[in-house]
Amino acid sequence: MNIAINEIIKNYESDNEKTLNNLAKLLNFGKLGGTGRLIIYPVDQGFEHGPDRSFSINPEAYDPHYHISFAIDAGMSAFAAPLGMIESGFSTFAEKIPFILKCNSSNSLTSIKDQAITGNVKDALRLNCIGVGFTIYPGSEFNFKLIEEACTLFRKAKEAGLITVLWSYARGNMSKKGETAINIISYAAHMACLCGAHVIKVKLPTSYIEEDATKDAFVKNNIKIDTAVDRVKLIKKSCFNGKRIVVFSGGEAKNDNELFDEVKAIKEGGGNGSIVGRNCFQRPRDKALKLINSIINIYKD
Amino acid sequence: MNIAINEIIKNYESDNEKTLNNLAKLLNFGKLGGTGRLIIYPVDQGFEHGPDRSFSINPEAYDPHYHISFAIDAGMSAFAAPLGMIESGFSTFAEKIPFILKCNSSNSLTSIKDQAITGNVKDALRLNCIGVGFTIYPGSEFNFKLIEEACTLFRKAKEAGLITVLWSYARGNMSKKGETAINIISYAAHMACLCGAHVIKVKLPTSYIEEDATKDAFVKNNIKIDTAVDRVKLIKKSCFNGKRIVVFSGGEAKNDNELFDEVKAIKEGGGNGSIVGRNCFQRPRDKALKLINSIINIYKD
Amino acid sequence: MNIAINEIIKNYESDNEKTLNNLAKLLNFGKLGGTGRLIIYPVDQGFEHGPDRSFSINPEAYDPHYHISFAIDAGMSAFAAPLGMIESGFSTFAEKIPFILKCNSSNSLTSIKDQAITGNVKDALRLNCIGVGFTIYPGSEFNFKLIEEACTLFRKAKEAGLITVLWSYARGNMSKKGETAINIISYAAHMACLCGAHVIKVKLPTSYIEEDATKDAFVKNNIKIDTAVDRVKLIKKSCFNGKRIVVFSGGEAKNDNELFDEVKAIKEGGGNGSIVGRNCFQRPRDKALKLINSIINIYKD
Amino acid sequence: MNIAINEIIKNYESDNEKTLNNLAKLLNFGKLGGTGRLIIYPVDQGFEHGPDRSFSINPEAYDPHYHISFAIDAGMSAFAAPLGMIESGFSTFAEKIPFILKCNSSNSLTSIKDQAITGNVKDALRLNCIGVGFTIYPGSEFNFKLIEEACTLFRKAKEAGLITVLWSYARGNMSKKGETAINIISYAAHMACLCGAHVIKVKLPTSYIEEDATKDAFVKNNIKIDTAVDRVKLIKKSCFNGKRIVVFSGGEAKNDNELFDEVKAIKEGGGNGSIVGRNCFQRPRDKALKLINSIINIYKD
Amino acid sequence: MNIAINEIIKNYESDNEKTLNNLAKLLNFGKLGGTGRLIIYPVDQGFEHGPDRSFSINPEAYDPHYHISFAIDAGMSAFAAPLGMIESGFSTFAEKIPFILKCNSSNSLTSIKDQAITGNVKDALRLNCIGVGFTIYPGSEFNFKLIEEACTLFRKAKEAGLITVLWSYARGNMSKKGETAINIISYAAHMACLCGAHVIKVKLPTSYIEEDATKDAFVKNNIKIDTAVDRVKLIKKSCFNGKRIVVFSGGEAKNDNELFDEVKAIKEGGGNGSIVGRNCFQRPRDKALKLINSIINIYKD
Repeated sequence: MNIAINEIIKNYESDNEKTLNNLAKLLNFGKLGGTGRLIIYPVDQGFEHGPDRSFSINPEAYDPHYHISFAIDAGMSAFAAPLGMIESGFSTFAEKIPFILKCNSSNSLTSIKDQAITGNVKDALRLNCIGVGFTIYPGSEFNFKLIEEACTLFRKAKEAGLITVLWSYARGNMSKKGETAINIISYAAHMACLCGAHVIKVKLPTSYIEEDATKDAFVKNNIKIDTAVDRVKLIKKSCFNGKRIVVFSGGEAKNDNELFDEVKAIKEGGGNGSIVGRNCFQRPRDKALKLINSIINIYKD
Repeated sequence: MNIAINEIIKNYESDNEKTLNNLAKLLNFGKLGGTGRLIIYPVDQGFEHGPDRSFSINPEAYDPHYHISFAIDAGMSAFAAPLGMIESGFSTFAEKIPFILKCNSSNSLTSIKDQAITGNVKDALRLNCIGVGFTIYPGSEFNFKLIEEACTLFRKAKEAGLITVLWSYARGNMSKKGETAINIISYAAHMACLCGAHVIKVKLPTSYIEEDATKDAFVKNNIKIDTAVDRVKLIKKSCFNGKRIVVFSGGEAKNDNELFDEVKAIKEGGGNGSIVGRNCFQRPRDKALKLINSIINIYKD
Repeated sequence: MNIAINEIIKNYESDNEKTLNNLAKLLNFGKLGGTGRLIIYPVDQGFEHGPDRSFSINPEAYDPHYHISFAIDAGMSAFAAPLGMIESGFSTFAEKIPFILKCNSSNSLTSIKDQAITGNVKDALRLNCIGVGFTIYPGSEFNFKLIEEACTLFRKAKEAGLITVLWSYARGNMSKKGETAINIISYAAHMACLCGAHVIKVKLPTSYIEEDATKDAFVKNNIKIDTAVDRVKLIKKSCFNGKRIVVFSGGEAKNDNELFDEVKAIKEGGGNGSIVGRNCFQRPRDKALKLINSIINIYKD
Repeated sequence: MNIAINEIIKNYESDNEKTLNNLAKLLNFGKLGGTGRLIIYPVDQGFEHGPDRSFSINPEAYDPHYHISFAIDAGMSAFAAPLGMIESGFSTFAEKIPFILKCNSSNSLTSIKDQAITGNVKDALRLNCIGVGFTIYPGSEFNFKLIEEACTLFRKAKEAGLITVLWSYARGNMSKKGETAINIISYAAHMACLCGAHVIKVKLPTSYIEEDATKDAFVKNNIKIDTAVDRVKLIKKSCFNGKRIVVFSGGEAKNDNELFDEVKAIKEGGGNGSIVGRNCFQRPRDKALKLINSIINIYKD
Repeated sequence: MNIAINEIIKNYESDNEKTLNNLAKLLNFGKLGGTGRLIIYPVDQGFEHGPDRSFSINPEAYDPHYHISFAIDAGMSAFAAPLGMIESGFSTFAEKIPFILKCNSSNSLTSIKDQAITGNVKDALRLNCIGVGFTIYPGSEFNFKLIEEACTLFRKAKEAGLITVLWSYARGNMSKKGETAINIISYAAHMACLCGAHVIKVKLPTSYIEEDATKDAFVKNNIKIDTAVDRVKLIKKSCFNGKRIVVFSGGEAKNDNELFDEVKAIKEGGGNGSIVGRNCFQRPRDKALKLINSIINIYKD
C-alpha cells in the first residue's frame, strides 16, 4: 500500500482487517487509485427523482448496465446504487468495479422527509459489495430514526468487514437555502463522523450562514468561509480534523467550467473527491467520459 | 430451456438456482409456456372489494376451487391469491399450477391507504408456492413502510429460492387520474425494480401526465407516449431497459375488443403479459375460457 | 371419524395432522359431536363489558369454574376464554372439555377500537388448548394491525398443531346499524377466511345493506337476503362456498323463541353452529341448561 | 404447608412448582405468614412522586436500606420496589425478606398516562426476587399497550417460576372520582385476573358508581356496596369469586383509626391484605412499626 | 483497593465482579484516583451543539485526538464521547484512559426533545470501554421511551461487565428555569438511581423551586437548599442517601473563580466530582490544563 493511502487508512483506528481491506480497495481502484482522492458514481436518481426525469434525456441510461459499464470505463473508484440496480449487473460486472449498496431511498411521489430501507448487510454481502451507503436527514422530524437506522446498519457492516458511507443531508427544520449553508453542512458532516461513517458525503456548501445557534461562532471566531476552498477546508476540519474521507456532490455549478472550479476547490481544500451522477448520465456517453477524465486530471494534477 | 426464456432469465444476475428454477417454472407453464409471455390469474378481490361485489355476478366464483381449476383449464401461467384461498385448494391442486402467495392485502371497509401483511415466506414454502406477491403504494403516507416490508419479504424469499412479484400502485399524493398517469406508472414501475422484484405488476397507463416534477422531462425530451404501445415500451424501459418482467392489469377497456387491443399493445410494446382477474370470474366459465383463449392467441401470434 | 365430520375436515387441505386432530376433537365433542354442528361457550364478557354487568344477575357466574362446569354439563363443543380464566380451571377440568384460548381482548373502559394481546401459542400449549381465538375489527383504524396480529398468531398456531378461530367484527368506518349489515358481515367473514382461520365467528346479520361500494352488487345480482336462512347461506357462501366452519352469535333475538328461530335459520342455512355466552350465564344454571338443550336439539333434528 | 395457605395456592391451577413455591414463600413469610393474609411494603413513590415529596418528612427514608430493614423488622410479607432500590440492598438483605421487582414506573414530571418499563424477568432472577410487579391503567389511551406489556412480562415470569403482581389503576376515560368508583375498581380487578396475575392490587373502592355502561347492573341486580366490607367482598368476587389474592392500598383514611377501620373491612370482606407504603415511611420508624403491628394484629385476630 | 474506594464500591451490591472492576478502574484512574472523587471529560458537544460552535474558538479541538490526549495529560478519570470519536482514537490511546461510550445523542438542528441511539454494548466492548453513558429527559414527551432505552442498555451493560452512567436532564413539562430547579434536579437524580445507573450526572441545581406537586415538601419539611453545598447534599441524599456516585456539570458559573466555588461546594456537599467539557476545550490547552489542575487540587485538598 502506498504512503498516501496508508496515511488515510491508519485514521480508521478501530476497524477490522476486512473493513480496512475494503477501504483500501476503494482508495486503490480506478484512475485515481493510490492518490488519496476518489470519485464515486451513484445511480439512485431513478428512485429519488424518477426514471424519466433522470434518464430520458439520454435513453441508454435506462439500462443499469449502461451505468456500471460507464463507471468502469471512466475509471471511477466505485459504483453506488440501490438493491435492484446492483442485482441487475451482478454477474456481468463481477469484480470489475467496487460496488456500494445504497441501503435506503426516498422518492418524489411523497413529500415526507423520510427514507425507506431497501437493502441491508446481508444483501451487500450477497452482492459482493465493499460497503453500504445510507442517507440521514439531520433536522428532519425523522432525523433520530434515520440516525439510529444508520448506526444499526453500520454496526453490522463493520462486523461483516464492509465500509460505510453516509449521505448527510440537512432537511426540515431550516430554510431551503439553509440546506446548503456552510454552518449546516459542517454540522451535518460532523454528525456523520460521530455516527461512525468511514466516508462522509455532503453537498458542497455555499457561503450562506443559516440563522441558528451556531451562527455566532462563525462571526466571533472569524471562521474563514469566503471561498469554496475555505469551505471545503472547514468541512474537512469538522470531519475529525481531516481524519475522515469526505466526498462532495455538485454545488451551484451551472456549466462544466464552474464544475471544474468546484473540483479544484475540493482538491485544494483537501476534500477527498467527488460523487458525480447526473452530470454524467444526463449527457452522451463520450461527453461524460470526457468530463470525468477532466475531473480526474484535476485531482491527479 | 428454450432461448427466449433463457434470454429473460439471464437478466436475473444475482439469483440462486432455486429462484431461477421457479422463474423458469413460471415462464414455461401454461399455454404461453416458453413464449416469454405470461398470464397470471389473481384472486384477491374478495379481500380488496368484498366477496359479493366480486363474486355474486357468477356465484360459482365464491369457491376457491372454481378459480384454481379455471386457471388450470384456461392454461394460465400462475395463480396468485392470499393465504386462505391457497390453503383451501392446496392438496386438490398440488403441482397442477404454480402458486404465488399474495402476502399483503387491503380492503374497502377502511379508507386508510395501507395494507395488512397476511402471509410470509414460511407460509409460501409450506404451501409449495413458487413465489410471493406484495403491494406497495408509492406516494401514500405509508409508502416507506410498505417498501420496507416488501424488501424484507423479498430478501427472505430470494434466500428461500422463491420469486418475487411486486404490485406497484401509486396512491395518495396525487390526483385520482394521476394514479394511472404515464409518468406516475413509469416511476412506480422503476421503484419496483429497484426494490429487487423479479416481476413487476402495474396498471396499463394512460397518456395523461400528472403535474409534478417529472412532467417536464416528458415534454423536453419528447418521450413518446401517445399510443398504448408507446406507453408499454416506456414502462419496459423504466424497468431496467427491459431486463425485468412486467405484467399489466386492465386499463380503460370497456369491452372485450378494447381489452384485446390492450393486449395487442402490451405485446407489441414488449410487455410480458397480463394479469386478468375480474374479467374472468365475473362472466360465466365458458365465456371466460374463451376470453383467455383469445388473449393467449394474441400473445402467441 | 364419521362421514359428515370427514367432509368438513377434508376442506382444510393444508393443515398438519395435529391441527386436523384438534379440529376433529372440536367436531366430535359434546352432544353435537359428529353432527357437523357445534356450539361454543365463550366467556370473555368480563373483559369486554366488566364483571358486574356480566355476572351480577347470576352471581355464581363470577366463578370461572361455574362456566367451565356449565359448558361440560350442557354438552357444549368447546370453552373459549381469556388467559386468566382458563388458568383458573386448568387442572380441575383438564381434558373434560376442549379449551380455546381467546388471545386478545378489548374493554369498555376505553373507547379505542383496538384490542390487547393477552395470550399466545405458548400459553395455549401450556394450557392444553386445542386452539386459539382472536378478534379483528375490519373497518377500524386498527384493522391492519389486528389482521397482522391474527395472521402472525395463526401461523404459529398451525405450526404448533392448534386450530384457529377468528371473531370478525366490523367496526369504525360505517354506521352502527352497518356493523351487522348483511354486506358488511359477509365481507368480514370472507376476510376471516382469507386470513386462514379454521373457524369463523360473526354476528347473525340483518337484512340491512350498508351504503358502500359493495351495495350495488346485492341489487344488481339479486342476492337473496330477505330471510335469516338466506343470509346464513350467503355468509357460508362467502366463507369459501361453505368450505369453512362458521358459527354465529346472537342476532336481534329478544326472547328464547326468537333465539330458537335464529338457531333454526342457522341450521337450515347451513351454518355450523352457535356461540352462546350471555344467554347462558345471565340466567340460572338449570334454565341455561334447558336453553342449550333446546338449541342442541334443534341442531340435532 | 398449612391448610389455609394450601386452600389459596390450589386455586392457581396452571402454575409450575417453582412459581407455587414462590407463592408459598410470600404467604408464609412475616408475621402474617400462614394466615392467608399478607402485607406488602412498596417503595416506588420516589419514582411516582419524587424523592423529596416522599421522603423529606422522614429523611432516613432517602436510604433504600431504611425501607428494607423496616419491612423486615415490621414483619411484612414482601418488599416491592423498582430496579435500583432492590439492587441497592441486594446483598445486605439477601434472603431476609421476599423481594418483588416493580417492573414499570411512571413519574409526576410528565402528565402522560403511561409507564416506562425499567425491569424484567432477567433482572428479577438476577436479584433473587420471588416475583415481578407491573402497573396497568385500564381506561387510559395506553391501556392496550400496558396490558400487552403486562401479559408478556407475566408469561416469562411464570415460565421462570416467578409470581406476578398486577397494580390495576383505572385512568383517563373517566372522572377523577370514578378512578376509585366501585364499578370501575371491580372492572379493573377482574381485568387483572384475566391477564393472569397471581396477586391483584387495587385501591380500596368508594361507594360512588361511575356513570357508564356498567352502572345499570349495580342498580338492577341490587349489588351490595354500601359498606367497605361489601365493596371488598365484591372485589374478591370479581377476582374469580375469591380464587385470586387481592391486596388493597389505602382508601380515604385520614387518620390511623380510619386506616384500621379499612383494614378491618378488608379482613371482614375477605380481602387478602394491605399494601402500605407512605403511611409507614412518612412517620418515624418506631411509630411506623407500631402502626404495622396494629394492622397485623387486626388481620391475625 | 483503598478504603475510600472500597466504601463506595460496596454500595453496588448486585453487580458482578467485572463491573465492579470497571468501577474501580474509574475511581482509581487519573490524578483523583483513590480519593473517591472523579472528573470526567465528555466530548459530545459536536453532536449536541455542532462542531463550529463547539470547537472553532480553539481550532485544535476539531481533532478527537486533541481531546483524548488532553484528558490524559490533565489527569482526568475518564473520557466520554459518542461512537465516532472513540473509534477515531481507539488504537492511539488504547489503555491510556478509561473510555465511556456515550450511547445516545441529540442535536440542535432539530427541536424534538428526544435522542438517537448511536452506540450499544457491542460497540462499547469492541472499543474496550469501561462503561456506557446515556441521556434521559424526565418530563419530556419521550421520557418513557428514553427511560426504557436506558434500562435496556444498562441491563446488557451490567451483564457484560460494564458500568453505566446516566445523564438525567429534565425537559419539557416545566419552565426553562425549572430545568435546573432544586426540586426538579433532585427528582431527576433519584429517577436515575432507580433506573439502576452506577453514576448519575446532573446539572448543579439552583435554589429555585419549580411550582409543582413536589414544592410543598420543601417548605413544609424545611429542606435546606439555600447554599450550593446544601443543594449538593440534597442531591446526594436523593441518590440513595449517598450510595450512588453523582457528578455535576457546570451551574451558573460565569468565571473561573465562580467555577472553583462550585467545585468547592460539590466537594463539601459530598458530591463525587465534576464533568467538565466546554470549560476545557474552549480555551487554549495550557490554560485548560491549569484549570483542571486547580479543580483537582480543590478535590484533593
